[in-house]
This record gives sequence, structure tokens and C-alpha cells, in this order.
Amino acid sequence: MLKPFSDKVASLAPSAIREILKFTADPEVISFAAGNPAPEAFPVETISKLSADIFAEEPINALQYSVTEGYMPLRKWLESDLRSKNMFADGDMVIVTAGAQQAIEVTAKILCNEGDVILCEDPSFIGSLNAFRSYGVKLAGVPTDKDGMLPDALEAALKANPTAKFIYTIPNFQNPTGNTTTLERRKACLELAKKYSVYILEDNPYGDLRFAGEPVPSYKSLDTDGHVLYAGTFSKVLAPGLRVGYLCGASELLAKAVVGLQTSTVHTNIWAQMLVYRFVTTVDLKEHLKRLQGIYRSKCRRMLDGLHANMPDCVTYSNPEGGLFIWATMPEKYDMNAFCTEAVKNKVAVVPGNAFLADENAVSHSFRLNFSTPTDEQLDRGTEILGQTAKRFFK
Amino acid sequence: MLKPFSDKVASLAPSAIREILKFTADPEVISFAAGNPAPEAFPVETISKLSADIFAEEPINALQYSVTEGYMPLRKWLESDLRSKNMFADGDMVIVTAGAQQAIEVTAKILCNEGDVILCEDPSFIGSLNAFRSYGVKLAGVPTDKDGMLPDALEAALKANPTAKFIYTIPNFQNPTGNTTTLERRKACLELAKKYSVYILEDNPYGDLRFAGEPVPSYKSLDTDGHVLYAGTFSKVLAPGLRVGYLCGASELLAKAVVGLQTSTVHTNIWAQMLVYRFVTTVDLKEHLKRLQGIYRSKCRRMLDGLHANMPDCVTYSNPEGGLFIWATMPEKYDMNAFCTEAVKNKVAVVPGNAFLADENAVSHSFRLNFSTPTDEQLDRGTEILGQTAKRFFK
Repeated sequence: MLKPFSDKVASLAPSAIREILKFTADPEVISFAAGNPAPEAFPVETISKLSADIFAEEPINALQYSVTEGYMPLRKWLESDLRSKNMFADGDMVIVTAGAQQAIEVTAKILCNEGDVILCEDPSFIGSLNAFRSYGVKLAGVPTDKDGMLPDALEAALKANPTAKFIYTIPNFQNPTGNTTTLERRKACLELAKKYSVYILEDNPYGDLRFAGEPVPSYKSLDTDGHVLYAGTFSKVLAPGLRVGYLCGASELLAKAVVGLQTSTVHTNIWAQMLVYRFVTTVDLKEHLKRLQGIYRSKCRRMLDGLHANMPDCVTYSNPEGGLFIWATMPEKYDMNAFCTEAVKNKVAVVPGNAFLADENAVSHSFRLNFSTPTDEQLDRGTEILGQTAKRFFK
Repeated sequence: MLKPFSDKVASLAPSAIREILKFTADPEVISFAAGNPAPEAFPVETISKLSADIFAEEPINALQYSVTEGYMPLRKWLESDLRSKNMFADGDMVIVTAGAQQAIEVTAKILCNEGDVILCEDPSFIGSLNAFRSYGVKLAGVPTDKDGMLPDALEAALKANPTAKFIYTIPNFQNPTGNTTTLERRKACLELAKKYSVYILEDNPYGDLRFAGEPVPSYKSLDTDGHVLYAGTFSKVLAPGLRVGYLCGASELLAKAVVGLQTSTVHTNIWAQMLVYRFVTTVDLKEHLKRLQGIYRSKCRRMLDGLHANMPDCVTYSNPEGGLFIWATMPEKYDMNAFCTEAVKNKVAVVPGNAFLADENAVSHSFRLNFSTPTDEQLDRGTEILGQTAKRFFK
């Protein structure tokens, strides 16, 4: 008898979203379940030209082994970009990863023993939660409202979990809720991190996709003594298929993360790193982001309009100022999972909220809606179907 | 006080090779320390054209999120290629990874608890050994000779380590020794894996670079009941910067590996996967490999000739039939590490053999020489300097 799986992965299941995405293979299904950037947001012609330039000018650099830390010109650009936002302190280091997901995964690997605790917003991004679970880490979910984690609840969780290693947070247009943590809450949570000597892992994939309201200073910029690790990515502002993200923080942590990456992917695809570098130094980034923000503002508006026009009034929605997601919440008397099943039968896929909970078996009355992937037509038709489903279901 | 690193990575150090490669930043140093494919082996023009085709024909597919399992056309091609070599059984699955290194790392992750044992050839590839160490796994090195692991020693190690999960082996032109495991030895080791109910992880990065002798059937092709996992890569036959490798084996294992990858890189850079697919289905692969084999045959010959002409006769060498490496062994009375230090002072870098041992503090009298990266001129000049160093050192 061959031996079974390691304890840390034995119960690890494919993400619930992936299971739902199977339904979306049916071309008739309108998917509000994904988290893909809008394809029209990809600057295809520019990327195509920059790629051709790379092969014309320095093909060997794009094909040979490279260093684990990442493509030096890109790292220098990131350092200077982060410094300009007060997010790169003396003694910091920035390294390139295969997407922010790998930055998050390697952080858990270098900091956590099995049985240690990671505190996270409840609900939170399932990809990160599964990365933490894959190291046998326990998740302690911290209740949130529209302004982010509740500081009292965070402190209670920190007290209850002395083996907590870090707080994982997505402060801007959170996945799945779309909510943004206020400055006051950020300051309070950072204070608690200091008081209880834990790190904060700040995950900011959507920060540049703000299409309303005013930017809030990042945790990283508020940090003065190495408590914050910052994960960023080019997946949402350029293209996710490239798998280029980064991790920034205190050098002694980052140096260990490099050793971790060296044993995994060795380095991130180097052509993609060179492409990103040429992109950020060639185009007018501000203009590019403005264009993306316009696309997402319009799609978010359209989805919210469709929901308000078609859904029963008892369902409420978050009001995101950026990002890709809206969080819908139903009255407690209805069975959210049964509603989602009905919806997918009617050819609209959404993600049941419990998929995003620290305890997946807990009850949720919410579901996640993605507005970035569907076309305008799908946004209209999908919210109409969702409304019809809800009206029948709520009777 | 912020909490320290996880136990599993606390003592993990950057690979010794990387430390040596720092010396090679000095442009005057001739490096026999790397493991890079020869840059002249990269089919730059073909890759450049295929990349342009991708952006002309299906840019969105190359930029959007993709599935964790890998690009389906590439997976189908791999399946058919492996099947033609009797290396894809019913119930098997093949998935794409970010290089074979990630295939190896995820195998350790899904199979091993901390404190479990992995058996490996002693010496073996440091990148894999560090991946295993990064999961808190104990390494049990199995002594080898020019024909591979010694079966009696392997059985003794299996008896001594009841928590052994798998045997890690590089059967063709092993890194670092350049030796190939004979068919007889493969059969004996596979029998032992079955007897003691452990897996074999067969790592075959160099198999297609055979430039002499006859191919030996892979462990995977000899396996009849799911004991062998097979890791392959396009790093040596196409380009390592792409980071495209693969893992093949029983579906139930591979499905868990997919969940592991999903929490790490999500998927391998999709442009690179599409490029590899177009490459293997466009070019005459046999001709391409013949060209590479010609390059490596000539470089290996040139290095061995240089060594025989310049080095004292008391130093012996492996005689690789493929791959990238030669293993040199000195008489026991000399201090190998001191010799390597002398060599690098004289501007030739080689890798001390103990870097490749399961116990890095054990004594080694060997060092690794790479012949694929240096130019012909560097091969000549480097072996000359090595010879002068040795003659002075051995006095």
C-alpha cells in the first residue's frame, strides 16, 4: 500500500469557484462567477510590439536562466515606484513572483509552522485561504463591515491565538466584498499588529483600479518598523496570463522568500518580466490606468443598475469604488446556496459566499458577483435572469 | 518581537552554487559552475516567429487567466508523446508546471509531512534537495557508483527509514555526476520501491540530450502499477527562461498536485505554454535534438580532452553519455574545498562536491564541471588553468 498524502494537503479541495466555473463551460451560462480582467482591457498591440522588440534586441536574456530575485530593471522600477508612494523603506527589498498568489503562498511558507494561525478578513479571497490551508495553518476569520475588519474583533482574535503569525488583508475593493478599509481602521489594525507582534500581509491586486472616491494610504506606507509585507501584481493592470507579481518588505524576510522561490519556480518567466518592464517604462501608465478605470466604472455601474432594476429590494449590495466584485446579501430567512443553485440552473453563475469564509461550513447569506468579465449584454441579461430567479425563489 | 521563520525554512540557505556564481559575476572568471544550456542551442528565430504568430492569432488566450492543469493542446501532445514511449498508462495524467523544479517541489508538498524521509542519490541535484529540505523533510542519501544507486544500500536505507515517502532519482546523465543508471539497476530499484511501498520520483531533464551510447528505458516505462511519478522539462531542449516543465503519473496524485499549484502560481505563464506547443508541433523535433546533441557532444569532448591534457593523472572523471556535467574526483589525501578555492582565485569556478550531498557537512573529494555554458575558448583556457592550479596544489 502506497502511503497517503501529507496531512497538510490531505483535506485540501479544489476551490469552490473552480467547481462553479465548470458550469460556465456551458456557453449558454452567463458567468458572474469569474474574476478575470476584461479582455478589452489588455493592451494587445503594445504587448505584441514590445515582445517583438525583446526578441529582436535581447533574445538570449529572454530565454536563458535568470536570477530568483527577479529581473533587475523591473525590480529597480518597482523600488522607485513604491518609494514614490512612501511604500519602500530603507532596508526593504522587492522581489518578483509568479503572480501575487505566489507572493502570498511563499509568505505563509516562510513564516508559518503547521498549526500556526493566520488572521484574515471573513470573508476573504479563497485562493489565499487555500494557500494558507496548504501549509496546515489554521485560519481565524475576523468579522468585517463595509469599513474593513472590526478592530475589537481583531484584538479578540489576536488574544485568542498566540501562535498567530500574520494578519492577511485586502484593503482596497476587497475580494469578495468590494469594500475598502478606511484609514482609521488601517491605523487601528496596524497598531494591533504592533501590540501583538504579528506581521500584516497586505494584498493589493486591485488598488490601481479605483474608479470612484479617494485613495486611502496603504498599510505599507503607514508602517514604520517592518511589520508590513506588501504583495502587488500586474495581473489586473496588464494581463494575468503573464503571472508577474511582486512582494515588498524587510530584506531579512524577503531574502528567505527568495530561498523559498528558488526551490519552487527558480524564477518567474523572464520574458514576461522584461515585457512588464518595457510596458511600464514605455507607455503613459496614468493614461493606461485611466482607460481601465473607465471600463470597470462603467461595468460596475451597469451591473448595479441591472441589480437594482431587477432584484427584489430586500437584497443589498456593496458599493465598490474599484476592483472587480460586488457582494450581494440576502435576507437571513432564505437559503443562499439553494438560490445560487437555482440561478445556475437558469444559466447565471454566481459564487456562494461561504466559499470565502475561514470556516467553509459556516452559514453565509451572501454571494459574489463579478462585473469585469461579462460583456455589457451579459450584464443586462444576467441581472434580469437573476431578478426573475430571485422573485420566484423569494415567494 | 516579531516571530521568527517557520521551522522548515529556518535553516534553509541559498544554494552553495549561487554563492559560487557570485564569483562568476567577475567577467574574468571562467565559470564551469553553472548549469545553463548553451545559448547557441536556443532556436531564437523560430521562437521569435512563433511568439509573433501567437499575438497575431490568439492574443487574448495568451494574456488571460488559464487553467492550473496547463494548456490543453500541450497536455494532449505530452500525453501522446509519453504514450509513444510507453510512459503514459491508463489512469495517468500529465500537468504543466513552471519548470521541472516546481513539479519536484509540489510532489514533496503533497506527499511529505515534516520529519518524513526522501531517499536520494548521494550526490544529487541541490535544487531538489533544497526543495525537500524546505518542507522539513529528512534526506537519506543512497551511495552510488557509475551505474546508479547501489540496490543493497537502497534497501538498507528503506529498512532504516519507515517514514520514507519516495525515492528521488535522476537516472540519465545525473546532476552532478553525469552517470546513467543501468537498466538492471533501474529494475532492482523499482522492485525495492514496490517491496517497501514507496513512490519513485524520476527527474529527467537531460534525457533528450543523449550524445553517445544507447537510451535506457525510463523508470516510468518499467512501472506497471503507479509507483513512478515522472518530471520532465523544456528547459534543456528549448529554453529555461520559459519555465515550462511537466509532471506525469497516477491521476489521483496529479489531481492533488493541481490543487497545490493552484495555491501557488495558479498556472504556468500561458504564452510560454502556447509557444512550447507551437514549437513541438511545428519544427522537426528529431532534427532539433540532433543539433543540440551535436553541440553538447562536442563541448563534453573538448572539456574531457582539456582535462586529460592538463590535469594530473590522479584526478578521475565520469564519462557522461549526455547532459551538461562531468564529475571530477581527486585523491583522498587532498582537500577538495581548498582546491576549489584556489581554482576560483585563479579565475576558474567549479562546484565543490559536498554541495550535492544529502549531508552537506560530509566530506567529498569530488567537484562538478559544467561544459554546456562555456565557449570552446573558455573550455580550453579553463581546463589549462585548472591543470596549472592542480599541479601546484598537488605538490
